[in-house]
Amino acid sequence: MNRAMIRNILGSVLEIEAALLLIPVLTALWYRENVGWFYLGTALLCFLTGYLFRVRKAKDTVFYLKEGCVITGLSWVLMSAFGCLPLFASSEIPRFEDALFETISGFTTTGASIVPAVEELSHTALMWRSLTHWIGGMGVLVFLLAIMPSSGSSHMNIMRAESPGPSVGKLVPKVRATAKILYRIYFGMTVLEIVLLLFGGMTFFEALNTSLATAGTGGFGIKNDSLLSFSPYIQWVVAIFMILFGINFNVFYLLLFGQVKKALKCEELRAYLALICGAVVIVFFNIIHMIGNAADALRHSVFTVGSLISSTGFATLDFDTWPATSRTILVMCMFVGACAGSTGGGIKVSRMVIAIKTVFKELNSYIHPKSVRKIRFEDKPVEHEVVRAVNVYLITFFIIFTASILLVSLEGKDLVTNFAAVIATMNNIGPGLEMVGPTKNFAHFNVLSKFVLMFDMLAGRLELFPMLLLFHPGIIKAFFRKSNVKESQ
Amino acid sequence: MNRAMIRNILGSVLEIEAALLLIPVLTALWYRENVGWFYLGTALLCFLTGYLFRVRKAKDTVFYLKEGCVITGLSWVLMSAFGCLPLFASSEIPRFEDALFETISGFTTTGASIVPAVEELSHTALMWRSLTHWIGGMGVLVFLLAIMPSSGSSHMNIMRAESPGPSVGKLVPKVRATAKILYRIYFGMTVLEIVLLLFGGMTFFEALNTSLATAGTGGFGIKNDSLLSFSPYIQWVVAIFMILFGINFNVFYLLLFGQVKKALKCEELRAYLALICGAVVIVFFNIIHMIGNAADALRHSVFTVGSLISSTGFATLDFDTWPATSRTILVMCMFVGACAGSTGGGIKVSRMVIAIKTVFKELNSYIHPKSVRKIRFEDKPVEHEVVRAVNVYLITFFIIFTASILLVSLEGKDLVTNFAAVIATMNNIGPGLEMVGPTKNFAHFNVLSKFVLMFDMLAGRLELFPMLLLFHPGIIKAFFRKSNVKESQ
Repeated sequence: MNRAMIRNILGSVLEIEAALLLIPVLTALWYRENVGWFYLGTALLCFLTGYLFRVRKAKDTVFYLKEGCVITGLSWVLMSAFGCLPLFASSEIPRFEDALFETISGFTTTGASIVPAVEELSHTALMWRSLTHWIGGMGVLVFLLAIMPSSGSSHMNIMRAESPGPSVGKLVPKVRATAKILYRIYFGMTVLEIVLLLFGGMTFFEALNTSLATAGTGGFGIKNDSLLSFSPYIQWVVAIFMILFGINFNVFYLLLFGQVKKALKCEELRAYLALICGAVVIVFFNIIHMIGNAADALRHSVFTVGSLISSTGFATLDFDTWPATSRTILVMCMFVGACAGSTGGGIKVSRMVIAIKTVFKELNSYIHPKSVRKIRFEDKPVEHEVVRAVNVYLITFFIIFTASILLVSLEGKDLVTNFAAVIATMNNIGPGLEMVGPTKNFAHFNVLSKFVLMFDMLAGRLELFPMLLLFHPGIIKAFFRKSNVKESQ
Repeated sequence: MNRAMIRNILGSVLEIEAALLLIPVLTALWYRENVGWFYLGTALLCFLTGYLFRVRKAKDTVFYLKEGCVITGLSWVLMSAFGCLPLFASSEIPRFEDALFETISGFTTTGASIVPAVEELSHTALMWRSLTHWIGGMGVLVFLLAIMPSSGSSHMNIMRAESPGPSVGKLVPKVRATAKILYRIYFGMTVLEIVLLLFGGMTFFEALNTSLATAGTGGFGIKNDSLLSFSPYIQWVVAIFMILFGINFNVFYLLLFGQVKKALKCEELRAYLALICGAVVIVFFNIIHMIGNAADALRHSVFTVGSLISSTGFATLDFDTWPATSRTILVMCMFVGACAGSTGGGIKVSRMVIAIKTVFKELNSYIHPKSVRKIRFEDKPVEHEVVRAVNVYLITFFIIFTASILLVSLEGKDLVTNFAAVIATMNNIGPGLEMVGPTKNFAHFNVLSKFVLMFDMLAGRLELFPMLLLFHPGIIKAFFRKSNVKESQ
């Protein structure tokens, strides 16, 4: 295990976090809020720790997938542990585990909150919460890759561990260039949403926060009622951007370079949009009698389906009061999630498509036992290794899912609440049903359940394995072994 | 597609059903019940149809897995369609879809009932219901194999389609001999349970019916309150036999031949018993304050866990009123199900064990990327093909599961009811939670939901693929194509 390299990269991550913490400090200056000192203090602490981590440079800069996963897992844990300090120290969130929960929920773009009244938080805290979403959406390590001097193929092992989806598509041959392009698209779309929201009459602070939370498909709101009190125009803008940020960024890259036809042929995009349309139609006809007005019913259907499938979690209405059919459809959207290579969470549309094609292939193998045709996806045959990885991912997902529900159920809350809390955190959505519905929050869980849900948020965001590996005896042993020469492979 | 052979075997199945229908006819004679005529009439109809199906013999007796699946799927549909006729014609179950539901529930050993007051049914009907469990438990085609003159390897393709579990273990090299041994063990254990129940003071009719329903891990009771009103001794006997019938019959075969050590080393058996013990301990401590008495709490815990994990579905208490932790544990038992090669339903312990080992192997592959070690199960390396089959099975399971919940949710019932109804039918358990809890029944569903649940029962019992294949365009086309020479492969 290349510990020196792990330490160096963790140091860089903390230094980036120190820089990012200056944004809430500026917010505090602007709004003259005293809590800004806590953010400044944390920034200094992050910087110092980061400096100490980086002072002894690694001689060997090569590392493998194993180290890539450990770096990713530890980065996110460390970032959250430091990121929660100002919220806790300023007493805006009085309990440490709550502050940690809120910060992990932010970085993992979950948006599940333990704050009962968001409007009572300072502008500084709100800004930091929204910013964690934005950083977490694209991934802090991808950001690091974008600014770091490239050193061979090792960095692909970080990108692979942090990027969502069954296979990492490098847009261009160099990892660093890919990371830069991704962040440029991300930044551009965020700015576009801010401008459109300003046109709708939002203040700059509101537009900035809402856009950061939409871009990361996070879902922390700055109002107690999420987006209910904003105009239909604003709700439409946010709905459309939530859906857009759930799309594979490859599509935007292709569009940017004028390859419109190729972009529109993307199979995952088509499946994603088809799913949204199907879900919207069913929900629309299921809720129209409650809403009374077709235009409003359509807006609420598109918004809610878009919010849940993209794993954002904003709300314009309490969808927990909708009829069972709609609630079932919404739970299914929660499971599916967004496209791979987007900022959204969930199992991912591409995995679902590959899984369904696997079943059809199995049925065909009964009819043509000698056929050896491979599944095709995005006009290419899918390698057996990818199919296997998808299968193993799904099984691992359901095992963690089941174990989490069991642990949370020890509290004695009702089955739907436990089920919804786990899926809403594991797929980085935020609100669920019943006691974790869109008008409720996660404060009522006990400490054990909160830690289970925190693990689920991190596991879900990092595609399960990096978080599981942190608890693997083999990794722990390798990490603490004294001599670590010759065993990096 | 070898249609002639399919027709011949379906004919044999109907003739067997005709013979079995004489048992309720005898019951009717004994209790002097007029409904017996309907069973006699149906027996004649079955026999005639069977005869017509068999009058033109197939020239080519060879068939492949494809035909094996079609035979299995059609046999079970046909058997149920004929089997429900006396219940419907006698007006004991006034609606056709209800009679069909009850019969499918019987043959698939589900035990989900639409009869609100079981005690009002005639002895004849009760006997037929219990008998369907017993026939369905081991499989009518396995029975056919036991009595049919063997013709090479083709029959393995039926056995493979009807027997539960990821891989069919032939106990002895000949399919026919294997089928005979299985039925002998099955018969012997059923008789043993009858004797033990008679010792406990049950009448012969009660003991016979209860044993048939236990042996098939079915769960149709002959009392409105299932087994609540019987003595603790009787409840213990049934609890132990439910657990026994959920064990892989290979174990009994080994025990029969004195290979006790080898039998006890069976990994699936150990996992199954460990799961039961774990679940019982948690449920016991979770419900003891409700029951007040340790002996009773232990009996109810063992009984309920055994009943649900073996997919029987008998009840001694309304477990739907138990705390959330217990209900969660019970739902998990429902998912896991019994051992492969038993009469029980569910995903099967061996599949779960292989799935969990797959996840651990995946984690290890991050640490040792070059390792190519195979998973080991039952002291043998598991072939990749088996792992793949387990993965595909699990994915198919969750797709059918999700689609069923969606269709059932169109009725607008609550989420837990829909969820429980689908898992209780698909894993052939019977009672679920909320509106399908142990004190309720399935009568309140609409026709669409009932047909979805009937499909689920059949799909669950036949391990998904035979039922799916019946709807596959390729199979339907092959079946109705005129010339069917040279395309049996």
